[in-house]
Amino acid sequence: MIKAGIIGATGYAGAELVRILNGHKEVEIVWYGSRSYVDQNYADVYRNMFQIVDAKCMDDNMEALADQVDVIFTATPQGFCASMMNDAILSKAKIIDLSADYRIKDVAVYEKWYGIKHESPQYIEEAVYGLSEVNREMIKHARLLANPGCYTTCSILTAYPLAKEGVIDMSTLIIDAKSGTSGAGRGAKLPNLYCEVNENIKAYGVASHRHTPEIEEQLGIAAGEPVTLNFTPHLIPMNRGILATEYATLKKQVTYEEVKAIYDQYYQKETFVRVLEKGVFPETKWVEGSNYVDINFQIDPRTNRIIMMGAIDNLVKGAAGQAVQNMNLMFGFSENEGLNMVPMFP
Amino acid sequence: MIKAGIIGATGYAGAELVRILNGHKEVEIVWYGSRSYVDQNYADVYRNMFQIVDAKCMDDNMEALADQVDVIFTATPQGFCASMMNDAILSKAKIIDLSADYRIKDVAVYEKWYGIKHESPQYIEEAVYGLSEVNREMIKHARLLANPGCYTTCSILTAYPLAKEGVIDMSTLIIDAKSGTSGAGRGAKLPNLYCEVNENIKAYGVASHRHTPEIEEQLGIAAGEPVTLNFTPHLIPMNRGILATEYATLKKQVTYEEVKAIYDQYYQKETFVRVLEKGVFPETKWVEGSNYVDINFQIDPRTNRIIMMGAIDNLVKGAAGQAVQNMNLMFGFSENEGLNMVPMFP
Amino acid sequence: MIKAGIIGATGYAGAELVRILNGHKEVEIVWYGSRSYVDQNYADVYRNMFQIVDAKCMDDNMEALADQVDVIFTATPQGFCASMMNDAILSKAKIIDLSADYRIKDVAVYEKWYGIKHESPQYIEEAVYGLSEVNREMIKHARLLANPGCYTTCSILTAYPLAKEGVIDMSTLIIDAKSGTSGAGRGAKLPNLYCEVNENIKAYGVASHRHTPEIEEQLGIAAGEPVTLNFTPHLIPMNRGILATEYATLKKQVTYEEVKAIYDQYYQKETFVRVLEKGVFPETKWVEGSNYVDINFQIDPRTNRIIMMGAIDNLVKGAAGQAVQNMNLMFGFSENEGLNMVPMFP
Amino acid sequence: MIKAGIIGATGYAGAELVRILNGHKEVEIVWYGSRSYVDQNYADVYRNMFQIVDAKCMDDNMEALADQVDVIFTATPQGFCASMMNDAILSKAKIIDLSADYRIKDVAVYEKWYGIKHESPQYIEEAVYGLSEVNREMIKHARLLANPGCYTTCSILTAYPLAKEGVIDMSTLIIDAKSGTSGAGRGAKLPNLYCEVNENIKAYGVASHRHTPEIEEQLGIAAGEPVTLNFTPHLIPMNRGILATEYATLKKQVTYEEVKAIYDQYYQKETFVRVLEKGVFPETKWVEGSNYVDINFQIDPRTNRIIMMGAIDNLVKGAAGQAVQNMNLMFGFSENEGLNMVPMFP
Repeated sequence: MIKAGIIGATGYAGAELVRILNGHKEVEIVWYGSRSYVDQNYADVYRNMFQIVDAKCMDDNMEALADQVDVIFTATPQGFCASMMNDAILSKAKIIDLSADYRIKDVAVYEKWYGIKHESPQYIEEAVYGLSEVNREMIKHARLLANPGCYTTCSILTAYPLAKEGVIDMSTLIIDAKSGTSGAGRGAKLPNLYCEVNENIKAYGVASHRHTPEIEEQLGIAAGEPVTLNFTPHLIPMNRGILATEYATLKKQVTYEEVKAIYDQYYQKETFVRVLEKGVFPETKWVEGSNYVDINFQIDPRTNRIIMMGAIDNLVKGAAGQAVQNMNLMFGFSENEGLNMVPMFP
Repeated sequence: MIKAGIIGATGYAGAELVRILNGHKEVEIVWYGSRSYVDQNYADVYRNMFQIVDAKCMDDNMEALADQVDVIFTATPQGFCASMMNDAILSKAKIIDLSADYRIKDVAVYEKWYGIKHESPQYIEEAVYGLSEVNREMIKHARLLANPGCYTTCSILTAYPLAKEGVIDMSTLIIDAKSGTSGAGRGAKLPNLYCEVNENIKAYGVASHRHTPEIEEQLGIAAGEPVTLNFTPHLIPMNRGILATEYATLKKQVTYEEVKAIYDQYYQKETFVRVLEKGVFPETKWVEGSNYVDINFQIDPRTNRIIMMGAIDNLVKGAAGQAVQNMNLMFGFSENEGLNMVPMFP
Repeated sequence: MIKAGIIGATGYAGAELVRILNGHKEVEIVWYGSRSYVDQNYADVYRNMFQIVDAKCMDDNMEALADQVDVIFTATPQGFCASMMNDAILSKAKIIDLSADYRIKDVAVYEKWYGIKHESPQYIEEAVYGLSEVNREMIKHARLLANPGCYTTCSILTAYPLAKEGVIDMSTLIIDAKSGTSGAGRGAKLPNLYCEVNENIKAYGVASHRHTPEIEEQLGIAAGEPVTLNFTPHLIPMNRGILATEYATLKKQVTYEEVKAIYDQYYQKETFVRVLEKGVFPETKWVEGSNYVDINFQIDPRTNRIIMMGAIDNLVKGAAGQAVQNMNLMFGFSENEGLNMVPMFP
Repeated sequence: MIKAGIIGATGYAGAELVRILNGHKEVEIVWYGSRSYVDQNYADVYRNMFQIVDAKCMDDNMEALADQVDVIFTATPQGFCASMMNDAILSKAKIIDLSADYRIKDVAVYEKWYGIKHESPQYIEEAVYGLSEVNREMIKHARLLANPGCYTTCSILTAYPLAKEGVIDMSTLIIDAKSGTSGAGRGAKLPNLYCEVNENIKAYGVASHRHTPEIEEQLGIAAGEPVTLNFTPHLIPMNRGILATEYATLKKQVTYEEVKAIYDQYYQKETFVRVLEKGVFPETKWVEGSNYVDINFQIDPRTNRIIMMGAIDNLVKGAAGQAVQNMNLMFGFSENEGLNMVPMFP
């Protein structure tokens, strides 16, 4: 039994960590950090937790926290984790950062897309990018883990085998992504009001969304070449779920069976990646509440393109679930401990 | 480890049984009954179950099934279970019927409200009404269990302590209930289409809904007198959840503390009934995906009425969850085994 | 052609006034008041109005405005209109106040329920309560009009004929109301976020909602006796629409036909009140975007109660539409001018 | 005043025709055709029309209808209109076909994508493709009008000026479209049930959707070269609205201003096409209930692509609204008569 602290426990991703860890046999949450709700009962902020979580929210003192726990999850705004990090903390507790602070290896790229100065670039090199299925071995030995973004997890895993095996022309890759509204966080902002989101769909961050360089870097590593792509997120009137629809030109003619074999080679042994049957395309509802990624593809011989589709629950595989999956790897627990939630339908 | 069969496994309640039992340590599902989908893969009917359930749908042969399993869940249309029941089946397997067939003791009342002839009234007497918190001891020894309806579970538990303790005038009780659309089942009917339900609310079954006599019978038993009440269900544009708002005149002046003490007396030791804090009123989202019932009340001194409110997930505590809770009681398992799902928010 | 000014034009009710008046042949809007967005293009605040409204938002200067227009609509927070009112304004322009400031004749009741001091009680007596169908003749001669609340319009019209004709026991009246989220306004508050409202239902303001005394006063006038009742609003995951479900004990035995005749007597000639056919109960979707009130009822001989149901679009008949209907009466226009919108389905 | 008949008046598109024509000064509907509901009151099928439409549904007798009316709208399944068409009908009434029967000039392409034989190919040549803004002059003289599909209207208008002016490389065009559920029609099918669509998003018809050849043909005409493209539709949990996100490589470097000037050249004088301001991207809610198309674009210098976005209400500009716009052109009415609906927000 290890002890965990969560900084940013009252955001939607933090709350999902609480939900998941509640069913984890090896972990006890001892610190519910939330600057906004210090000294309030956690269950007053998330009333679904009434009689389940009996604890008060604590301030964000990362140093004090590191003394008390084995692992710290930071589900905090960009820049926070980088501003707090130091050798002392890293020597005492493992860090799983759900923000973008250590996801991008090139600090200049980070600073350009996020518009803030990185306050501890010296730790970027050490940080392991926590795409569990891709970097499993490195994750096992990480002490500072950069948990991937929601859009990025979905976008990368959907295209990864074909990028890695050189099946698709990376210069043609276009990712059109759709997300439920919980991805926008719990901040009280006009565009996130019920009446503004409901019965509506829009693109946002067109050609400028911050997850773009993260996807480019990781798929570039897979492909062995620099990748520049278009990524367009859309806001969907639903709480949870991301669907990524990805388009790329095939480098050479391939059959369904050949592509399927490549996907299977990468994912058949993976618990949380399901390559669907022929002609069955992912729906976010089929993964809701679970750590699954559902993937499939369609070859279009008319255009010589392949359309790849992937679906996740943005708060689980796209945030808290993958963070727990990474924690399991880092501490030598069974990788799917606490993550056996069956998707909820309807 | 016991074996379970589900007849009607491809309705929403049946599918929820599959989801819940999947996480139950003492039960293995060996029969996914579904007349409509015989020989099809269960996971083709509910794709959220892909790579989780590897089984084909079976026909509804209850006799054959009783030979193979310890418990049979019938999540079937009204009349089916009654038409199948016989001594042989009951001698071989325990039956948990999620339909209304054995819920109402007076067969004339059943036949009047449901408009069908009861085909095995001889078993009604034996059947135990499976409101777990109320009939726990009887349930432990039942072989034929009548699992309560969704509206009824919520409506009864919300008013039960005050009916039982004589706090409210039962002749004044009015129940205004609101349900998510999964309560209408998975049948392809025009009124249940997305565009007909979305952005809409309506009352239905006004003064004629079939759950009325079930609520009346049970609250009548609690109150020790015949009860006739108004029950009005409404269809809400959401998938899951029931909220019951109940109005009754107080028999005498009582304080908040007195009423709270009565609720606590009945529910404080109950895992799945949460009486909320003063001034906090139930929201269905706080119980979504879980077996909880959230309850609270407000006294209105201006009208001398009390307003009681209760919320459940209609597919869990209102159907499959309570069925599993009852199964746990009937087989001597821990009552909350398989039911520790933390409500999902958002 | 008259000139109109709107104070509070950037709230949802104000924006609905803009939408409706845009199709009105006799009115030109010359002042889009909005303290929050002064000097910004109105169409930047409501982009549906792009290339339709070409005007900037103005400050809330009611005195200056009165010089320029024939009618002022105040769609403002409680207390604003009362704090601004004076003889000069009233001598220059007709005022239609969409807030509660002049709705309640007893200033003590207003101050108790709203928790603020009324700053111009001297005008309450003169103000006409703008329930168009009930107070039509008085409205024609009003210069200060108190436009009814959304819940109240729906609640009152649904019960009015039976209250007036003494059919129901007013001491037993219970109103259980359900509203879409636009009723909560456009303020950026956590409880109104998409993820908090979606897939959720809750009661709020239980036994304490401010529309209660307004309903009581008006139904009391109708019944010719003081009325105290329970009113419970609920928040529904939809943008628009209110459904009121109302329960009352019948004073004597009546038939469907007798009650229907009473409703017809009051509403058959009304353009905007539709008493539905027997057994057809109101759905908010059937009135969406229109000024209609749909009403029906069901007698329950088992309990000797009648269940009355009414549905409106809260932003139209519940706010802006009724305000325009009242303006039409006040200025001698055709009562339905600008209000012939066919309900939008789906 | 002309007389109109609608065949297929009880589908969602047919019902929207009824809604729109109800506010049209020059048209009277005299025939509400609906094979499924013959002899039933139209207002019993669409209760929003209660006391607005007082007529019964009629059978689909197109010959008899042509004798009585000036214009026939066919909002029917593919193949129906083609199977009915003959010289006699065309000599008596103008036909506006909302199905795909006459949209595609190459009958082999039609038969391949729709999988049915075209029963009156001799009329294809004469039929005018009713994209109002593009084919205005031809439409004025048409007697057989092929009203464009919903996805196609949105997809084509969004890219049209850049295709026509040779700004984009047509071989790179990818259209990722998202539609509300009313596009799926009112048929009672499991995938369209509330609980299956709500809280869910999926792609469908991937690389095989029937609107593909229609888009290809029209954009091919614009570009002056054959076009083959990827079109991927997605189902969104909302009633109305289509958003098309379109990606293409720029043929040469262009500035925002240059592209804007091209869009303005085509659309500035158009009532129903709004090219939004810089950096403001279309949202379906801003056009809901109206005949507007909202369009904008973003150049991505990193990839040398342009992202074009367009939004419509699928039932209005995507079906009934454009049909009425075409009727106005065909009969010499003001083009926007009956179509001045202000978009409804929220």
